[in-house]
Amino acid sequence: MEMLVRRGFLWQSFEIYGGMAGFIDYGPLGNGVRRKLENLWREFFVINERAVEIDTPTIGIEEVFIASGHASSFTDVAIECEECGKIFRADHYIKEKLGIEAEETIESVKEVMETYDLRCECGGKFKHPENINLMFSTTIGPGKGKKGYLRPETAQGIFIDFKRLADYFREKLPFGVTQIGRAYRNEISPRQGVIRLREFNQAELEYFVDPRNKTHPQFERYKEQKIKLVDKFDNEHYITLSEAVEKGIIAHELLAYFIAKTREFLLKAGLKDEKLRFRQHKDDERAHYAVDCWDAEALTSYGWVEIVGIADRSDYDLSKHTQYSGEDLSIFIPFKEPIKVKKKKVVPKMDKIGPTFKEKAKKIVELLEKAEPNEKIELEVDGEKIVLTTEYFEIKEVEEEVHGERIIPHVIEPSFGLDRITYSVLEHAFDKDIVDGEERRVLRLKRWMSPVQVAVLPLLSKDEFVNVAKRISEMLKANGIFTEYDDSGSIGRRYRRYDEIGTPFCITIDHQTLEDNTVTIRDRDTTKQVRVKIDELVGILKELLNSEKDIFEFGEVFKE
Amino acid sequence: MEMLVRRGFLWQSFEIYGGMAGFIDYGPLGNGVRRKLENLWREFFVINERAVEIDTPTIGIEEVFIASGHASSFTDVAIECEECGKIFRADHYIKEKLGIEAEETIESVKEVMETYDLRCECGGKFKHPENINLMFSTTIGPGKGKKGYLRPETAQGIFIDFKRLADYFREKLPFGVTQIGRAYRNEISPRQGVIRLREFNQAELEYFVDPRNKTHPQFERYKEQKIKLVDKFDNEHYITLSEAVEKGIIAHELLAYFIAKTREFLLKAGLKDEKLRFRQHKDDERAHYAVDCWDAEALTSYGWVEIVGIADRSDYDLSKHTQYSGEDLSIFIPFKEPIKVKKKKVVPKMDKIGPTFKEKAKKIVELLEKAEPNEKIELEVDGEKIVLTTEYFEIKEVEEEVHGERIIPHVIEPSFGLDRITYSVLEHAFDKDIVDGEERRVLRLKRWMSPVQVAVLPLLSKDEFVNVAKRISEMLKANGIFTEYDDSGSIGRRYRRYDEIGTPFCITIDHQTLEDNTVTIRDRDTTKQVRVKIDELVGILKELLNSEKDIFEFGEVFKE
Repeated sequence: MEMLVRRGFLWQSFEIYGGMAGFIDYGPLGNGVRRKLENLWREFFVINERAVEIDTPTIGIEEVFIASGHASSFTDVAIECEECGKIFRADHYIKEKLGIEAEETIESVKEVMETYDLRCECGGKFKHPENINLMFSTTIGPGKGKKGYLRPETAQGIFIDFKRLADYFREKLPFGVTQIGRAYRNEISPRQGVIRLREFNQAELEYFVDPRNKTHPQFERYKEQKIKLVDKFDNEHYITLSEAVEKGIIAHELLAYFIAKTREFLLKAGLKDEKLRFRQHKDDERAHYAVDCWDAEALTSYGWVEIVGIADRSDYDLSKHTQYSGEDLSIFIPFKEPIKVKKKKVVPKMDKIGPTFKEKAKKIVELLEKAEPNEKIELEVDGEKIVLTTEYFEIKEVEEEVHGERIIPHVIEPSFGLDRITYSVLEHAFDKDIVDGEERRVLRLKRWMSPVQVAVLPLLSKDEFVNVAKRISEMLKANGIFTEYDDSGSIGRRYRRYDEIGTPFCITIDHQTLEDNTVTIRDRDTTKQVRVKIDELVGILKELLNSEKDIFEFGEVFKE
Repeated sequence: MEMLVRRGFLWQSFEIYGGMAGFIDYGPLGNGVRRKLENLWREFFVINERAVEIDTPTIGIEEVFIASGHASSFTDVAIECEECGKIFRADHYIKEKLGIEAEETIESVKEVMETYDLRCECGGKFKHPENINLMFSTTIGPGKGKKGYLRPETAQGIFIDFKRLADYFREKLPFGVTQIGRAYRNEISPRQGVIRLREFNQAELEYFVDPRNKTHPQFERYKEQKIKLVDKFDNEHYITLSEAVEKGIIAHELLAYFIAKTREFLLKAGLKDEKLRFRQHKDDERAHYAVDCWDAEALTSYGWVEIVGIADRSDYDLSKHTQYSGEDLSIFIPFKEPIKVKKKKVVPKMDKIGPTFKEKAKKIVELLEKAEPNEKIELEVDGEKIVLTTEYFEIKEVEEEVHGERIIPHVIEPSFGLDRITYSVLEHAFDKDIVDGEERRVLRLKRWMSPVQVAVLPLLSKDEFVNVAKRISEMLKANGIFTEYDDSGSIGRRYRRYDEIGTPFCITIDHQTLEDNTVTIRDRDTTKQVRVKIDELVGILKELLNSEKDIFEFGEVFKE
């Protein structure tokens, strides 16, 4: 962590004003890694799925979170000291002081407090435990305005746009909708660090499917892969994904597909396979909306940390928003073949209605045709109640062709915590080795994840070297490559500096450059160098940065 | 706007709950354009400057905005009706009802209200006008917690990190720091639409410079370019940038540089030159922190709209944060040559101090050496006040070598409103023409700005066409190209569909494809087609999408 702060990856927010727990600043290098992670995620979960990305506000109006259940259920149990007024998150405080895993319910916390006579750090007694809502609240508009919350997840913005989105996809399931952006959780007493943040970055995919068909056309690609699973009974498995589905460890193929794809993504981002596992939520651990959930966990210096949650949210959210907004958020699914259904139907007797009701007859006929079949039918016509008996209509059984049905799709949601993944990527990449008899600190980031992709270094800080180096640096930048130019300190010290921040390639301008327009490319991991023509540099670097190719494919070994 | 909603560019937020003014959703296509705009901005203002990007929280603690002046000065004058309780932004209401441009001060609004007996729409009288702060406020942590605000600009997050940033750049000016992200302004009564949002997206560059050297090494590139300027006296100019600087219309070269670079960026994003101008803020219009400011304005259906502000913020922010945080936010600037400075210095007389003050002597000597030269010097030693005269010290004139000085850098800030730019790009791209005798709606987005870059269309929805088309679609996606596959409707209708959303290229799989593995590429703007080999498709499309090359460079004209 010291290196991460010193070199400009992550900083404590509001540092000059004393800092504030639960917030973090991405310095230039940390931001570079996270932005690259976002783009990689887009490639996996937007471009290469039948999916789109949208972007909705971080502030939401109250109605949204009443419907979603967050206004009532997005809570932690808190305990407040009667004396000093400090407030703690109950389960964390109990764990820390008593070493007990308490359930997160008021009753359970109360019991523990009484049994152990739990006191505040100041010696004071605690008040009764309370549920505290974890959404940040604010007011929209002047004066009393309208109550709003900062979103606790990006997902709700997707659910409330469902009609527009279904329209975009011409009502054809399955389809995915993603969002990458900020979410907020007003933690009661977060520790410093990147793991428990009050403001964080999510990338969420909401994958809408026909509930009777939780499969994915590309599951084939993954089904024979073996994977580390910890099920909800804490049993460990190392089996293929198709076995896990067959044995019912993973509820269905679609969850298994996203577990596998998540793993592929995390490995591509640079996490180490041996420090990665998937763990199923226990029955009492799931969020209020989830029916099954698997976490991807990374092993870090904080222990096993949840970095992705892959949940089957069923039709929970769309049903709730249908109920609260009054809008129909179902989708029409056509049958393969239309089916014939026998149905009772009201058939108005025109010869009776006409003469009796005169100018109201037309409306009555319309209403009758829509009415539920019954011996007596009550209608409201222009504010007047009219009760009709079978004198005015018949009930006939008819056969109708039905072409499909309306259903509320289910949602499978892989939800990624980008801050935790960024941190895990950095931790897994951190390495030390011995180079020229000296210990070297090196960040072995995947080349496509490095914030500074290339460093351009004149061997000496003389004009003739500097000018060429600056020209090359400008050329690389004009080609969209994140490049740093650096002429301060010995060449060895500069190599070390860029090794430490994970820059995969250093370009050195040396005496030979001035003779034959060649430079050397130095590989961070092997510290080996090859000599290439300046003219070919951009093409070679682009190829190297997007692959794990060996530099020796592009030039002759250079010996110092 | 209707097209933008229908086709999935921009939607009203919280639509199913009745909507809320001042918020907007980016649908799949709008999001695509804005994300591409962000990446283009990064290329211009991060990669190709001596600049980095950071990312800091959207929630800020109160201290930050007290220091920055936003807590007191980020306000609008509001008027509230005594009867119905409605609150309006005074200048907007006066403009709308009376057609008068009122100054945004309480006095001026009061005067207008009294002169014209201004009433609420309901007929009620207004209360006294009031300054209302436009920041969203919230509470961090449980209970009373700590007061926080949603940031009104991303810039403050950069200023308070200045020490870390200066360190990153090894204290060498000039350097730039950017941030791309959300900012918030709790508007009193915004109209619907994308122009006045309560939650919006900014891209800001804070460019820190030596105040005595407001130049840029790359100004050469732009200085002979002619540009449309409207100065603060409403005079219009069409002159070169170097003339504008020489005549003092633009305050200095660095502002001129960023005006020119902003223009280059906006044109590259697709704005029309004839609908773009730069306007200087009048003296009473500037934000509380700015000493000079130029807006880029785009002509849209809303009139001339401010889309970028380029301000010289001087040392306002760094000085304020130095003052409020107590941290030194200056930077050490070495002189080219050390200079010799004559200086008066206090030299303690050891032989007098020692015997008199005994064990306190050491401390007194230390304090004296740091004291201002004076006949009488008052010191505080261990809480005791001691007054010394020249009996105990001498004042000598000495010559010292000074290697540099500490200064607080000035900041030039180009600040981009990404939502307004996205909207302007869409409006400027909207076009109609006649194709095959029929009117066609076409969005002439720059190729690198199009959200759906390529559409893959089987001529007929038969298996043999569909299978090839899907395979090509997967191939393009695997190469990171935003691709849509579409087989519904006649080929002509599908072309129109993609013309309307600005997709530059349609790939058609036809009978000949099945014979010789070629497809056609159709150009949106000319509707012309060329035939190319499937094997070469990825390379050709990548080249086309990143340039304005003619498709005829890549294949023979195809005649239907």
